Amino acid sequence: MFRTTEQHKECRKCPIAKTADLIGDSTTLLIIRDLAKKPRRFTDFETSLPGVSTRTLTQKLKALEIEEIIVKEKYAEFPPRVEYKLTKKGKGLLGVISAMEKFGKKYLD
Amino acid sequence: MFRTTEQHKECRKCPIAKTADLIGDSTTLLIIRDLAKKPRRFTDFETSLPGVSTRTLTQKLKALEIEEIIVKEKYAEFPPRVEYKLTKKGKGLLGVISAMEKFGKKYLD
Repeated sequence: MFRTTEQHKECRKCPIAKTADLIGDSTTLLIIRDLAKKPRRFTDFETSLPGVSTRTLTQKLKALEIEEIIVKEKYAEFPPRVEYKLTKKGKGLLGVISAMEKFGKKYLD
Repeated sequence: MFRTTEQHKECRKCPIAKTADLIGDSTTLLIIRDLAKKPRRFTDFETSLPGVSTRTLTQKLKALEIEEIIVKEKYAEFPPRVEYKLTKKGKGLLGVISAMEKFGKKYLD
């Protein structure tokens, strides 16, 4: 189908579509929700996101690291401790989470 | 793993998780983005969301109708015209779309 540049821009290149590519799955949204409050360890996500496999969780966290939404912090303790936290860019997504919360409270509770 | 009621509440029953269940996929987010501006016909989505199959599009629109996020409006014309538009509840999601746009413009452009 013929598509003008303007239409194409609307479909896949707009800021909303780019953000949807980044966070458009519920596990990713819930990871960001969890990190909104405080840094978390891998096992924390396993507890808060039951039903999400270890493999999927590993993939989602890796993807968020690559996109610089989250960063892994390693603490030289024994046993070593690794925590995930939001970057400055990641904190930019808190507006989305907060809008979701507002909607959920108003329409889904 | 043992989980307290409070933790369980955090994971799947919070307003953010419920909203994520509803809109936590990129096609759904882009359908809402499109409807934010004006009502659309099925073929409009086929144009604006290339790469999304007719089957997937049908399923996503049906799911949004069931959740009363969108409504189908039928016009008694010839040929008959059917348009999808956001309900009042659906318009409640525009805050999410707008936060996504803000993030995308700041961090992904």
